[in-house]
Amino acid sequence: MKTYDIASIPGDGIGKEVVPAAIRVLQAAENVHGGLEFKFTEFPWSSEYYLEHNQMMPDDGLDTLKNFDAIFLGAIGNPEIVPDHISLWELLINIRRHFEQVINIRPARTFEGLSSKLANPKDFDLIVVRENSEGEYSEVGGTIYQGEDKIAIQNAIFSRKGTERAMNYAFALANQRGKKVTSATKSNGIYHSMPFWDDVFKDVSNPFPEIQTEQFHIDALAASFVTQPERFDVIVASNLFGDILTDIGAAIMGSVGIAPAANININGKYPSMFEPVHGSAPDIVGKDIANPIGQIWTAKMMLDHFGETDIGDQLLRAIETVIQKGVVTKDIGGKATTNEVTDEIIKQLRRA
Amino acid sequence: MKTYDIASIPGDGIGKEVVPAAIRVLQAAENVHGGLEFKFTEFPWSSEYYLEHNQMMPDDGLDTLKNFDAIFLGAIGNPEIVPDHISLWELLINIRRHFEQVINIRPARTFEGLSSKLANPKDFDLIVVRENSEGEYSEVGGTIYQGEDKIAIQNAIFSRKGTERAMNYAFALANQRGKKVTSATKSNGIYHSMPFWDDVFKDVSNPFPEIQTEQFHIDALAASFVTQPERFDVIVASNLFGDILTDIGAAIMGSVGIAPAANININGKYPSMFEPVHGSAPDIVGKDIANPIGQIWTAKMMLDHFGETDIGDQLLRAIETVIQKGVVTKDIGGKATTNEVTDEIIKQLRRA
Ligand SMILES: CC(C)[C@H](C(=O)O)[C@@H](O)C(=O)O
Ligand SMILES: CC(C)[C@H](C(=O)O)[C@@H](O)C(=O)O
Repeated sequence: MKTYDIASIPGDGIGKEVVPAAIRVLQAAENVHGGLEFKFTEFPWSSEYYLEHNQMMPDDGLDTLKNFDAIFLGAIGNPEIVPDHISLWELLINIRRHFEQVINIRPARTFEGLSSKLANPKDFDLIVVRENSEGEYSEVGGTIYQGEDKIAIQNAIFSRKGTERAMNYAFALANQRGKKVTSATKSNGIYHSMPFWDDVFKDVSNPFPEIQTEQFHIDALAASFVTQPERFDVIVASNLFGDILTDIGAAIMGSVGIAPAANININGKYPSMFEPVHGSAPDIVGKDIANPIGQIWTAKMMLDHFGETDIGDQLLRAIETVIQKGVVTKDIGGKATTNEVTDEIIKQLRRA
Repeated sequence: MKTYDIASIPGDGIGKEVVPAAIRVLQAAENVHGGLEFKFTEFPWSSEYYLEHNQMMPDDGLDTLKNFDAIFLGAIGNPEIVPDHISLWELLINIRRHFEQVINIRPARTFEGLSSKLANPKDFDLIVVRENSEGEYSEVGGTIYQGEDKIAIQNAIFSRKGTERAMNYAFALANQRGKKVTSATKSNGIYHSMPFWDDVFKDVSNPFPEIQTEQFHIDALAASFVTQPERFDVIVASNLFGDILTDIGAAIMGSVGIAPAANININGKYPSMFEPVHGSAPDIVGKDIANPIGQIWTAKMMLDHFGETDIGDQLLRAIETVIQKGVVTKDIGGKATTNEVTDEIIKQLRRA
C-alpha cells in the first residue's frame, strides 16, 4: 500500500465547496486503482481563522506543513474581512516562498463539447510556466511622505538563478511536448528587468537548438491568447505576467472555474502545493454552483507529481467525458450542481 | 480659416503605410467641412533613422515638436535593427514624458458587422484611462554582479499626484458616460504600490457618490475583458496594466489593427500625441494589407481633442459604415487593401 499524506487547506469561499468535492474524487480513485491511499489532514486556515486568531495560520503552521507529501489548497481571500495583501502574503505567498515552490505550471486547452468564449477557436493546448518566487511580487519597497506628496516605490527583483530556473523548466517541458517556447517580455517598456529577462532567455535557449523560440511583449501576447492561442506550446513568464496570462488562458478555455495549477518545489526538499487558478468567489458561495473541475483537474496534477500518472490520466479522461456529456455547472453552460458534476466524474472514473 | 499644425511621424513598418492613409482622410475632411486646414510636417524619425544617425531623433527633436498643435505618430520599433528599449525610450516614451502626456486613453467597442473574436459577444463600449508617465515604466533600477549571480532590480514608482491625476480623469470621463469606474489593481500580490493605488482610488472616488466603483485584480480583469466586456465603462489602470488591457480590448474588438489611442497633455502646455495601439508589424509590411482604421480612428481622437467634434463624429460614422459594408482588410475578415479601405472611408465622409 502506497500512502500519500496530504495537507488540505480549503481556505475561503468556494474553496470550502470544491476541496471536499475533489477529495471525494481522490477517494474514489483509491478504490479504482487499489494499492493507493490518500490521507488528508485538514487545516482551517483562512480569512475567518484570521478574524479569530489575528493571523492566517498558527506560528508553527509552516513547520506543520513541512512533513506532508503535498498541500492541496482551495482558494484564499475575502477582502471584506481581511485585506488581500495580508491574507495572501501570510498564507499563499508565504507557503510558495518558504517551501521554495519556485515554478507554477498552468495548462489551458480546448475540450470537446466545451463552449469556448472565443468564436470558432482552433484546437489549442498550451501551458504557462510561471516564475513563482520573485519578480514583481516582492515585499521590497515602501512609501515616503503623506498626503499629496506620497510616493510608493515597488521593487521587482529578478535573479539570474530564479529566471534561469523557470526558463530551464520551460525548455525541458517543451522538449516533451510541442518543442516551442514563447517568452513573455516587455523589454520595450520596462527598462531594466525585461532586457535582462531577454538576455537570460537567449542564453538558456542556446543548448536547445531543436526547440523553436519566440518572444512576445506581454501586451501583444495577452491579445494573442485571444486571437491565436493555437500557436502556443510552452510559455515562460514572470510571476506577474504568468498570473495574468493564466487567467486569460482560463477565460479562453471557457471558465476560470476549470483551470488547474501546481506550485512545484523542484528540488524535492519541501512539499509542492496544488491550487486551482480561480479565487474564492464570495458571490457564489453556498449555492452549490461552484465548478469543481478546476480543483479536480488540480488533483490530477498532484497525482502526476506523485508519479501516479496512470490514475491521473484516467481522472483527466473522466473530466473530458463529463464535459463532453454536458454534466457541468452554469459557468460553462450546464445546469448541474457542484455535487452532481463531482458524482458524474466519480461515475466515469469507476467505469474506466 | 482654422489651421492646425501637425507633426507627423510615420515611424517604422506599417506606420509608413497607415499614416499617409489617415492623412489622406484628414485632407478629405478639410474639404467636407470647410474653414479647416491641417498642415502636416513629416519627420522621418524611426529605427532606420537610428541606423544612420545613431539616435532616434536629432538633439533638437523635442524642441522642434514643441510648437506643433499635435503629434500624429504611426508605430515605432524594429527589433531587428534597434533594440526595442532603445527605440521606444528615445522616441515614444521620451515624447510622452517630455510633453507631460500623462494620460493615455483607448476606447474599445463593438461595431455592427465586425466579426468579433468572441463567441456571441454582447455589445460593449469601454474606455481605458491609462496612467502614462510613471508606474512600472521607469528607468530607475539596474543590475548588479555578472553571470550566475546577476540580479536585476526594477523600480516601479507611483506618486500620489500621478495616480490621482489619472483617476480624476477617469471619474470626469465616467461622469459623461456610463457613470462607472473600474480600478485595475493587484494589491493581493504586489505589496507596496498596489495597496497605495487602492487607497488613492478610495480617496478620489469619495467626491463622486453618483459614480459606481469597483476594483478587479488585473488577472481577473484581463479575463473579464474576454468573458464579460459589456460590464465595463471606464477602467483606470497603471501604465503597464493599461498597456496590457488595451491590447486585449483591441483583440476582443476584432483586431489590434482598428484600436486608436491618444496621449493627452492635460495642462495644455505641450502638444498631445495620437498613435494607434498596434505596432509596426514588420511581417506585413509592403503588402498593402495593413488595416488603416486604427490610425484613422486615432485621427478622429485628434479632431475631438482640437474641439472639432462635428467632423470627428462624421469620421467615426464613416468608419462604422465602411465596417458594416465589409470593405475591410484581411485581419477583420475582408479582402480590401489599405488604400481601398481608405478610399471607401473618404467616399462615405464625402457623402455625409
Ligand atoms: C511600444 C511600447 C513601449 C508601448 C507601450 O508599452 O506603452 C506600446 O505597447 C503602447 O501601448 O503604446
Ligand atoms: C491570490 C493571488 C495572490 C494569486 C497570485 O497572483 O499569485 C492568484 O491570483 C494566483 O494566480 O494564484
